[in-house]
Amino acid sequence: MKATTIYAAHDVRLEDQPEPTIQKPTDAIVKVVAACVCGSDLWYYRGDNPIKDPFRIGHEFVGIVEEVGSDVRSLCRGDFVITPFMYSDNSCPHCRVRIQSACSVGGFWGGPDRAGLMVDGGQGEYVRVPLADGTLVATRETPDPAMVPSLLALSDVMGTGWHAAMAARVQEGDTVVVVGDGAVGLSGVLAASRMGAERVVAMSRHEARQQVARSFGATDVIAERGEAGEAAVLELTDGVGADAVVECVGTGQAMTTALTVARPGATVGYVGVPHGVELPVRTMFSHNIGVAGGVAPARQYLPAMRDDVLSGSINLSGSINPGLVFDLDLPLDKVAEGYAAMDERRAIKTMLRP
Amino acid sequence: MKATTIYAAHDVRLEDQPEPTIQKPTDAIVKVVAACVCGSDLWYYRGDNPIKDPFRIGHEFVGIVEEVGSDVRSLCRGDFVITPFMYSDNSCPHCRVRIQSACSVGGFWGGPDRAGLMVDGGQGEYVRVPLADGTLVATRETPDPAMVPSLLALSDVMGTGWHAAMAARVQEGDTVVVVGDGAVGLSGVLAASRMGAERVVAMSRHEARQQVARSFGATDVIAERGEAGEAAVLELTDGVGADAVVECVGTGQAMTTALTVARPGATVGYVGVPHGVELPVRTMFSHNIGVAGGVAPARQYLPAMRDDVLSGSINLSGSINPGLVFDLDLPLDKVAEGYAAMDERRAIKTMLRP
Repeated sequence: MKATTIYAAHDVRLEDQPEPTIQKPTDAIVKVVAACVCGSDLWYYRGDNPIKDPFRIGHEFVGIVEEVGSDVRSLCRGDFVITPFMYSDNSCPHCRVRIQSACSVGGFWGGPDRAGLMVDGGQGEYVRVPLADGTLVATRETPDPAMVPSLLALSDVMGTGWHAAMAARVQEGDTVVVVGDGAVGLSGVLAASRMGAERVVAMSRHEARQQVARSFGATDVIAERGEAGEAAVLELTDGVGADAVVECVGTGQAMTTALTVARPGATVGYVGVPHGVELPVRTMFSHNIGVAGGVAPARQYLPAMRDDVLSGSINLSGSINPGLVFDLDLPLDKVAEGYAAMDERRAIKTMLRP
Repeated sequence: MKATTIYAAHDVRLEDQPEPTIQKPTDAIVKVVAACVCGSDLWYYRGDNPIKDPFRIGHEFVGIVEEVGSDVRSLCRGDFVITPFMYSDNSCPHCRVRIQSACSVGGFWGGPDRAGLMVDGGQGEYVRVPLADGTLVATRETPDPAMVPSLLALSDVMGTGWHAAMAARVQEGDTVVVVGDGAVGLSGVLAASRMGAERVVAMSRHEARQQVARSFGATDVIAERGEAGEAAVLELTDGVGADAVVECVGTGQAMTTALTVARPGATVGYVGVPHGVELPVRTMFSHNIGVAGGVAPARQYLPAMRDDVLSGSINLSGSINPGLVFDLDLPLDKVAEGYAAMDERRAIKTMLRP
């Protein structure tokens, strides 16, 4: 079978690999229907995160269960499943309080598990899924192919955007600012809107992304960045600031903007992996601005988001369509181009079809 | 009249001052019944905060309304009032979301108001109270003198401890760790207990403070500090960590302990003015640990806490007795000794009676 390995910055290759097999009775083998490239994959692709050894990359995929281990209870061959971007047993003490991203036996795709056994990456034809009962979320029926992008988005970006809005404690009627117009930021707009925010301000300077933001419920778009962007938010809110702020970038500038536009008492929900972020604790203290968030427990939100996606036709009220974040749909053998397009900002997010 | 001025580190003096008069129609004059010394006063007393010019110190007091300005609507001469440690109009946009400590026209006792007019400190015989309607909270009747310490504690330490527990999102049934056994930390124990925490772990190595903590509802006491203290909490919680952490010190070590004992998904509610705190954003991110808190909006909690104090005899179920934090009761003219006793840790908190 074919699967993707990243060797170095700007060097991803689709190569022949042995087809995965059940290694543990809690494993399942999933035949990938669609996978995608993540903004966090770009940290490696751009050389911002070091690559010590080449590894199998990709952590977002949906597919069909091909085989299950003898201890797997909730899944059958033929089930359509959505995979969160981390695997987890969904039953340890951290999972029980729904922080599955801190699962005491879970981990990341493409790395070693706690026993040192390598786990597959998601950008391939087949994936061995550890802790399958805890990790995978199945749909009742095989969904309409038109639903696949939105279900795939739940794997990471939509769950991450949702987590940011949850961490920011978005309430009905709030004015919410979303910093970042990547796929996660756009998902944050959708989440805030879905949670009943009255005003959702998307900070975006790219027209195509502004359009997605508006279709996801943004009521205002601010194209300026840095101090000019902060001033624009304060003007929009009569100098008061936002009731909740969703930070989906992870840079120091993004966090500064997020903290600056937060009104006293607000929380900045952040999900961008921090790179060069220093939290100004004295300012946060004097303004009573909290920060909360982190590696999203996408697994927590999957069942409800799955139902939200499947609850109606696309764009009918009551359903959500996070799949709009995909603006490039490539066959898996074009994976290198999928990375390049995102790296060069020609695409918001690339879907890959084996 | 007599009032206290701080001149320099270790130099507080009770001196004759002109009796205050109404300066603005929103002012009230309060005759102080009891005031006290705050841990944050000690930052100046110890030289940790610079003193540019001598200033009238003290920001916690209860008293009797002596006179009101022509615009004051809710208070009458003779009312017994509790004062939060900041004044506020209780009607600006920040006050309306109950962050009165960010009031757009409010401020601190002992400093200049927004027009440059000096505001009195609280450690004196009389105080001019700006924005009296928004600031002061009256009791229905003049309370029994035995209630005065507990009502005075609401001025700052109890409201601050309450804010820390609120910011930490303490829920019924939680295991809560309280870092800090000063008056605020002890109040945090009382708040967490009052909010229904099942287990309240007080980190305290002073026997007298441990006793107060237990009477405030601490179920466990950990005397160790630093890594040994952190290990003790993890052992108590089967390696999981606390559901919520209340940080009431403000040092780097206290924050490190607070973040280390928080379980994934928990929030550290912090109210200790940060001195040398650096927030480890990558660790917070990877463990999904939030931080929230800041300058407490004591005004927000005053009416409910007042009712809690007055709802029964001291120590009857349903009432709270935060006044137990006072273990030194001095006449106002012993103010210098009151500071020295707290500085030398001979007292948890000093009450001063004019």
